[in-house]
Amino acid sequence: MSHGLYLLNTQPTTAMSPLTFGVAQLNPVIGDLVGNCDRLLIAIQEFAAKGVSLVITPELSICGYPPRDLLMSQQFVHDMQTAIADLASKLPPDIAVIVGTVCPNPEAAQVGGKPLFNSAALLQEGKIKQVFHKRLLPTYDVFDEDRYFAVGNGSQVLTLNFKNGQALRIGVTICEDIWNDHKFWEKRNYAEDPVAELTQNHDLDLLINLSASPYAVKKQQLRENMLSHSAIVHNLPLIYANQVGANDDLIFDGRSMAFSRDGKMVACGKGFEEDLLIINFEDGAKPSPQNGYECDEAEIFAALVLGVRDYVRKCRFKQVVIGLSGGIDSALVAAIATEAIGCENVLGVLMPSPYSSDHSITDAIALANNLGITTQTIPIQPMMSAFESSLANIFTGRASDVTEENLQSRIRGSLLMAISNKFGNLLLSTGNKSEVSVGYCTLYGDMNGGLAAIADVPKTRVFDLCEWLNRTNSKLTIKSKLGQDHRDSSEVIPVNIITKPPSAELKPDQLDQDSLPPYNILDDILDKLIHQHFSAAAIIDSGHEQAIVERVVRLVKIAEFKRRQAAPGLKITDRAFGSGWRMPIASKVTP
Amino acid sequence: MSHGLYLLNTQPTTAMSPLTFGVAQLNPVIGDLVGNCDRLLIAIQEFAAKGVSLVITPELSICGYPPRDLLMSQQFVHDMQTAIADLASKLPPDIAVIVGTVCPNPEAAQVGGKPLFNSAALLQEGKIKQVFHKRLLPTYDVFDEDRYFAVGNGSQVLTLNFKNGQALRIGVTICEDIWNDHKFWEKRNYAEDPVAELTQNHDLDLLINLSASPYAVKKQQLRENMLSHSAIVHNLPLIYANQVGANDDLIFDGRSMAFSRDGKMVACGKGFEEDLLIINFEDGAKPSPQNGYECDEAEIFAALVLGVRDYVRKCRFKQVVIGLSGGIDSALVAAIATEAIGCENVLGVLMPSPYSSDHSITDAIALANNLGITTQTIPIQPMMSAFESSLANIFTGRASDVTEENLQSRIRGSLLMAISNKFGNLLLSTGNKSEVSVGYCTLYGDMNGGLAAIADVPKTRVFDLCEWLNRTNSKLTIKSKLGQDHRDSSEVIPVNIITKPPSAELKPDQLDQDSLPPYNILDDILDKLIHQHFSAAAIIDSGHEQAIVERVVRLVKIAEFKRRQAAPGLKITDRAFGSGWRMPIASKVTP
Repeated sequence: MSHGLYLLNTQPTTAMSPLTFGVAQLNPVIGDLVGNCDRLLIAIQEFAAKGVSLVITPELSICGYPPRDLLMSQQFVHDMQTAIADLASKLPPDIAVIVGTVCPNPEAAQVGGKPLFNSAALLQEGKIKQVFHKRLLPTYDVFDEDRYFAVGNGSQVLTLNFKNGQALRIGVTICEDIWNDHKFWEKRNYAEDPVAELTQNHDLDLLINLSASPYAVKKQQLRENMLSHSAIVHNLPLIYANQVGANDDLIFDGRSMAFSRDGKMVACGKGFEEDLLIINFEDGAKPSPQNGYECDEAEIFAALVLGVRDYVRKCRFKQVVIGLSGGIDSALVAAIATEAIGCENVLGVLMPSPYSSDHSITDAIALANNLGITTQTIPIQPMMSAFESSLANIFTGRASDVTEENLQSRIRGSLLMAISNKFGNLLLSTGNKSEVSVGYCTLYGDMNGGLAAIADVPKTRVFDLCEWLNRTNSKLTIKSKLGQDHRDSSEVIPVNIITKPPSAELKPDQLDQDSLPPYNILDDILDKLIHQHFSAAAIIDSGHEQAIVERVVRLVKIAEFKRRQAAPGLKITDRAFGSGWRMPIASKVTP
Repeated sequence: MSHGLYLLNTQPTTAMSPLTFGVAQLNPVIGDLVGNCDRLLIAIQEFAAKGVSLVITPELSICGYPPRDLLMSQQFVHDMQTAIADLASKLPPDIAVIVGTVCPNPEAAQVGGKPLFNSAALLQEGKIKQVFHKRLLPTYDVFDEDRYFAVGNGSQVLTLNFKNGQALRIGVTICEDIWNDHKFWEKRNYAEDPVAELTQNHDLDLLINLSASPYAVKKQQLRENMLSHSAIVHNLPLIYANQVGANDDLIFDGRSMAFSRDGKMVACGKGFEEDLLIINFEDGAKPSPQNGYECDEAEIFAALVLGVRDYVRKCRFKQVVIGLSGGIDSALVAAIATEAIGCENVLGVLMPSPYSSDHSITDAIALANNLGITTQTIPIQPMMSAFESSLANIFTGRASDVTEENLQSRIRGSLLMAISNKFGNLLLSTGNKSEVSVGYCTLYGDMNGGLAAIADVPKTRVFDLCEWLNRTNSKLTIKSKLGQDHRDSSEVIPVNIITKPPSAELKPDQLDQDSLPPYNILDDILDKLIHQHFSAAAIIDSGHEQAIVERVVRLVKIAEFKRRQAAPGLKITDRAFGSGWRMPIASKVTP
């Protein structure tokens, strides 16, 4: 029985003051060691002013997660050591900080193994006093930790002494370390369970977990259940510090949490925002804040807004440009961008062709009015004519086909990039996951853009999001100063954009459903194929038509070359195209 | 002392016949289980007819290497088991085969760990008789084996009994297993050395290694030295079976080898071609074939030819289209493509603008004549005018800048894609590594293409390759039936293409050297930065101007968003952009 255990219990009879903990749920810029440490120091100073004794940061908070191949630079690793030593030297007195960083693996060259550990460092009294290394290294989906890190060795137990004589024994775990409870998962992902080993072999007062856990739909409830389970099973209070902010395709949702030893959540940080979370276990359990979102759509929208805002900001852009087709995908992306960076920073470009319907213009203009964004209109007929004339000779005797459709898309993509180049705004591409899955999109055309904002959102969910936007408009903070005066307060997305049948409008009277199965069927097939890892046979067994399933499976396979050249897409599911999707292109697989 | 040991020695006094081994150095199509097994069976039958007792295949030869996320499909893994069982059932009598495949890890769910092993299976007497699992799993550069595979357990010793009563004890290793001799490397990459353990604990007659080792410049000599060293150190004959063929960005060069126990190479398979290598150790050492290449340029050219040919073929294209600028990059790509698939299958497209020099046309035509390829010419002025007029309003008051240069490149890229779409030929992009490094290329413009043929070839090496092509023209088999009648026999690449200063010709009198350091300086900086992992400070210390180094480092960083959307590029160095280059985009790093 440890002395410190007592400090975390509700024993108001003692004269000793209970400890206060802080979680610095910050939004780091990848690689910005000096900036990240500066922001962390300010947070620590704020915590110190509020009497916090121990501050916990997310995983790798010095460099931001994921640093990826920046870790292959010895200079970068060296600079991290300098930055953390400098941070330690600047700490206010009487506060300890456990910060996520990397440590060199001194045995790598002689004994073998990767040259770094993914670590947590205790900073106290101006120094790095102790380091702890991550043991379970995720190497699946978007994670590549075996690429960089050695499996941690050494103690994960921190005995923290405070000047007032208090002491606390803490089990220090990093992200994946706490994701292998075989009772909770009913299987093992790794042979070891660091938490079980820690709690069986040591008399701990507290478990902490430094995390960089990316957002996915439904994941926060899973985390809450799992962490609560761990607190109960090990009979220990638990603090989970998660990164917030988006880095390329990955959105980190924050929502750091603390649980009492009986598994009750006693504190929860904000979702998709920085937060300095203060935790007093003796306050007792508070009701779970449900993480603040009324439905999946509300949460996804918040995620995508952060994803766009951070990509724009961290790539040092201020404004974005979006092609507005009058369709629902570009409407949703425009709404996300407006919420993310303000209507004054969003330019919508209408590029009608002879095949464009009248409503493609009126709907796009109505959307722009609702959002309060500026538009420009550039008809593409002159470029279409120039290309057609120039290609007429070489195309003699060939029928019109998808070539001419793609040309329209590429003319639009080139116009948007010209605007992006001239004005220095970032082009957002607007393809949804259903399209990207089956290749219903044009490479170097509508796929153009620095960020694919809704590339992980299936078409049916695009509809759900737009309907939700319209339902909850009054609660939204869409930054459409101009728009608010003009728009019908009940709608963000003009209803006609939601109700009309989707069309690429690349030839007369074209509808998506001429080329693709209905989206509810397509999305169900794609969900089973991509997220549930069903075989074609199993999808057919589940009730879908064989011909449709085989066609979809084939389309997904042959669209691989397009996806390989796609912009990074914001990830909101457990399996997105992008850094966690690694498929061969030149291949032959019988479905 | 094993019985079999004797069989591998030169002891002509014995009445027993020495064993003959075969290496099936085949070119698999990724995922084509049925096709790969069919081709393997034909090879085995050929070996059987020649009296071969044991056939060894490269790593994962049933599915081809790398299968990447195809391994996440349970159906695919199941189909592999079916395919290999079927192959075993069809084997000729009296032959044994050791074939690369995957095996399920039965303990994964209960004990933890990845669900598969990377394995070698012994097929004999119609059955899968034994399996052996890879222990060292490369997870660096382009390799992601920890993503899919569990570390192998179980014996790596195969006792092979032949009907005639002969027996052989073989140490079975898979690729990386043999790459961790700490004496050879003077360090350890992994804590374990499977070869040392095998030879210390077992009385072996032979070491074999199933490999899928991708090509890089200078790598074959390294392999030869390392394998020879292993044979000597462990006093064992050694057979190394390497995959041949290109799969997306990776080129496998074959050149399987066998070494006697004194480290002499006794057999070597062809480079960049399929080969059925027959090995009789009693033949004694043959001189090293120097791997068949007179210089790095000859070898690189062979690699790129295979890379283009296989990508075209495995993606089921027959023809390619290339934009011919009159510059050296597109000239080299056209020569590679001509050699790869024949002049009748290569279309060159000239797209002059008002900024194009006269020689850009004459040089491109001269090149096409030398190669015997067809050309089309499409001036881009009409599209330039259409875009300029259409953008005039929105660009009012803005000076001409890189926007207009990029537009020309994007018009060309759209024309090439229109031709690709209409005629079903594959567009090859022509950017070299120097350009791609510093972003001297246009996304959705000259970067367009399904394959970036020379994306890993620095500009200085592009010159070297073209000069070598001209020097050795008479020895080449460039398939330019038409061209051979017309061209000056001393040149493939018109000399003016090599001697004129490089220019993008996107504005009047533009030269690459106006925007970039001289290529010999640029390439040296890039080599130190990318291949040698130097810091900016170390590059400056090595003698380069600070301002130039800092600019190059900055350009490399900010071009990341372009590279993320680049086509797969054929890898010929130890560090290429592409699947082995994983850098964040939205980041901030102080050089």
